[in-house]
Amino acid sequence: MSDPDLMQKVISLAKRRGFVFQSSEIYGGLKSCYDYGPMGAELKRNIMAEWWRSMVYEREDIVGLDASIIMHPKVWQASGHVANFSDPLVDCLACRVRFRADKAPKVEKGSEVAYKKEGKALRATANRSYVCPACGSPELSEERRFNLMFRTFLGPVDPVGALADKLAGRSLSAQEIREIAEGELAPATVYLRPETAQAMFVQFENVQQSLSLKVPFGIAQQGRSFRNEVTVEHFIFRSCEFEQMEMEFFVKPGTQKEWLAYWTEQRLGWYRRFSNRPEDFRLRQHAKDELAHYAEDCYDVEYRYPWGYDELEGIASRTDYDLKQHAKFSGKDLSYFDPAETDPATGKVGRRYVPYVIEPAAGATRALLVYLLDAYCEEQGQDAKGEAKTRVLLKLHPRLAPIKVAVLPLVRKDGMPEAARAIVSEFLKSGVKAKYDDNTAIGKRYARHDEVGTPWCLTVDGQTLQDGTVTLRDRDTTAQRRIKVAEARQTIQDLLNRAG
Amino acid sequence: MSDPDLMQKVISLAKRRGFVFQSSEIYGGLKSCYDYGPMGAELKRNIMAEWWRSMVYEREDIVGLDASIIMHPKVWQASGHVANFSDPLVDCLACRVRFRADKAPKVEKGSEVAYKKEGKALRATANRSYVCPACGSPELSEERRFNLMFRTFLGPVDPVGALADKLAGRSLSAQEIREIAEGELAPATVYLRPETAQAMFVQFENVQQSLSLKVPFGIAQQGRSFRNEVTVEHFIFRSCEFEQMEMEFFVKPGTQKEWLAYWTEQRLGWYRRFSNRPEDFRLRQHAKDELAHYAEDCYDVEYRYPWGYDELEGIASRTDYDLKQHAKFSGKDLSYFDPAETDPATGKVGRRYVPYVIEPAAGATRALLVYLLDAYCEEQGQDAKGEAKTRVLLKLHPRLAPIKVAVLPLVRKDGMPEAARAIVSEFLKSGVKAKYDDNTAIGKRYARHDEVGTPWCLTVDGQTLQDGTVTLRDRDTTAQRRIKVAEARQTIQDLLNRAG
Repeated sequence: MSDPDLMQKVISLAKRRGFVFQSSEIYGGLKSCYDYGPMGAELKRNIMAEWWRSMVYEREDIVGLDASIIMHPKVWQASGHVANFSDPLVDCLACRVRFRADKAPKVEKGSEVAYKKEGKALRATANRSYVCPACGSPELSEERRFNLMFRTFLGPVDPVGALADKLAGRSLSAQEIREIAEGELAPATVYLRPETAQAMFVQFENVQQSLSLKVPFGIAQQGRSFRNEVTVEHFIFRSCEFEQMEMEFFVKPGTQKEWLAYWTEQRLGWYRRFSNRPEDFRLRQHAKDELAHYAEDCYDVEYRYPWGYDELEGIASRTDYDLKQHAKFSGKDLSYFDPAETDPATGKVGRRYVPYVIEPAAGATRALLVYLLDAYCEEQGQDAKGEAKTRVLLKLHPRLAPIKVAVLPLVRKDGMPEAARAIVSEFLKSGVKAKYDDNTAIGKRYARHDEVGTPWCLTVDGQTLQDGTVTLRDRDTTAQRRIKVAEARQTIQDLLNRAG
Repeated sequence: MSDPDLMQKVISLAKRRGFVFQSSEIYGGLKSCYDYGPMGAELKRNIMAEWWRSMVYEREDIVGLDASIIMHPKVWQASGHVANFSDPLVDCLACRVRFRADKAPKVEKGSEVAYKKEGKALRATANRSYVCPACGSPELSEERRFNLMFRTFLGPVDPVGALADKLAGRSLSAQEIREIAEGELAPATVYLRPETAQAMFVQFENVQQSLSLKVPFGIAQQGRSFRNEVTVEHFIFRSCEFEQMEMEFFVKPGTQKEWLAYWTEQRLGWYRRFSNRPEDFRLRQHAKDELAHYAEDCYDVEYRYPWGYDELEGIASRTDYDLKQHAKFSGKDLSYFDPAETDPATGKVGRRYVPYVIEPAAGATRALLVYLLDAYCEEQGQDAKGEAKTRVLLKLHPRLAPIKVAVLPLVRKDGMPEAARAIVSEFLKSGVKAKYDDNTAIGKRYARHDEVGTPWCLTVDGQTLQDGTVTLRDRDTTAQRRIKVAEARQTIQDLLNRAG
């Protein structure tokens, strides 16, 4: 199957089987907003739970944080987002399209280009190094920086009303009005966080002190972030609202190189662990001119998407930039006293320093797309009558699968539903997500569970009630074998543990 | 301990032990925004996981959803939030305070009241039924409806710039400017959801069809909601950003009374299950004049907070109001065809209807406050020297406790750390949140784990390496007994299961 087909097939299955819906679909949808249906919500939960497990539960040196989405506006001044987190926007004066200058088609400045305006074919000199991506016109507005942060207003304020009162009866220039308007809006302006990372810097001291943590240590957070992206693309790959999984790892200055190497390997390995094709993940070091202003080095974990290799996670060596910026803007000392280190300046034991930071920044929604693409399979086979038939399945890693085991009564009578429910109950007690399902014929149920990635089905049939056995069907091989009901829970738990 | 003390003590412990911090504290904090530290993040996760388990995993009839926070603005027109989700705000012309008219001190209209203005004692006639809550003045601005939804702008738009261009060089009245401004802002305006519920109505059809669900069934969702509250109070009780746990249960018209009774009992029981004082939770039916416009009946689960009984969760019988509103505003048919029902109009089998809805709407952040209050204990005892000493502990239910079991090497040598880490490792493999802790003296570690609510501590000492046993200490009784390392995991799991 060719790659463009794969994307369309995954999008179609995602909607059909309750993984991903367009947000507010009955209202025509909302640009780049998505809702996760029953299966997608579980898949996302599982991805996020695995990340949290590997970051927080299985480690002694990382703790969690769960901060508010709306933070003090000074946070975004200190971080540089207010000044720098923007795209250059241009309006085409010919066709009225608004576009990003840095993503527009390149041409040679001063060259003659052809375009259409109101149906007429025209030629004109390009006075910039790009033209309109829609009509090719060089007739363009000035470039304007467009900040990607969503702005809103906190508190019982009515900025529009206040502005109207202020402007009433006055004839002013656009520039004067803009300044008055910004002055009215400024005191109440807050932003939706464009990343979760800043909360870990802002709460560095509270977290460190409340748990007496010793450097090196990390703070991990998961949650929604918001970017008012001009270009949204590739389904859930780039959207305005997305779910991040970020960790800030605070280290002793001078040790950041080793820790960056450590975390790039850790993170690459984490993605590969749940994949059918680990070779589709790779690391790419950023070139010097790609690095963000705060980073001294950075690696991307890239995935081979249908459109080629592209970003999945960034692991940046952020130096002490962020803590120092917040110390400067807040007036608080955000340094750390290390009683075991020798101060290089005085030669005495005990050293105060501002830690350096390594940041693995992952996107849960992007990871969900990756694992759907990784898992989607079609197999050519035959149906019961010997006709050619395509089997669609999601080869999701058992730890990510929304349902671990489906328990299916062959028919809805003869005590089979009761027996199946008793089995489900046993699984749930030990924390294994099992699902009772008696909807439609057994073949259709298998097909449905193949499509949502359920690794195992247990079928209760007539024999179950006689000899206490059920059929265990494997999603990937479709092989079936009989196992004892009494051993079902342990068998599935062993299979889950074996999957790693 | 008196109740006002309790609140202050819980707030203090919450900060000291990493449960709840003020958001952006180094910048002076942000009104009513809170961050959950390492312990608070885990407590919140556990509360939310227990809700999800009881709603989604343990039931055949409820599935999950995880929708975007920004939805199509028409959703909030259909739901009534744009028109009605507002408070009446008034400015005091004497002292400039802005306040809610419905919460202001009541006086008799036309009566003479005393107040102060710029230091002068004045008297005037009250021409409304309330006065300023700050200075008592009857000199007040007009009441203005203030919508509680946070408004922001989606897409590459610059509403201030566009407005400035439009108003430049024109002298207009405040009313005219307001209309032009609203016209400019309207096309890009979106809102942060003030509740998660509407996504379940908007995605009703997608969810129902993708899983072939049969009424009665429910859709559950957890996530952040935002309300620009004028009055924030009682720590995290009422804040502008909070975490909801809502479930919409779709039922056959005519059965809503039974289902409302069922869900009120379920939800009350759920809260009590994790409490030390189940009697502090009660149900209260809404009076007719309290009911929201969409509700035909409603119960609150109330808790006895330090300031008295107050709301914890609302369970509303919402009729078919929401689905019908969204059908009307979207032009989509949001009815359900029930093949097993007889149509009362035609007498034929098969009936199409718009389901009625029962909604248990809980707040995870409010539940977190309740369980902190419920768990906080002080015990008078003696220290090793016989001096009076107060032991502070959080008697959190083991399922809610951030750490289930702390594993403590008595000293940091003689192989004890290695033995302790091996035990932690065993716990983590079976999904029990264990924590290795070798920080400070053993007594201090016990005290710290008492304060964060860790129900059990396992201490590795010299004897462990000789006979393979550890000390098991109980948080609530402080009793200690020796158990075998090999049986530690099973012992703790049994204790967890026994706790329910």
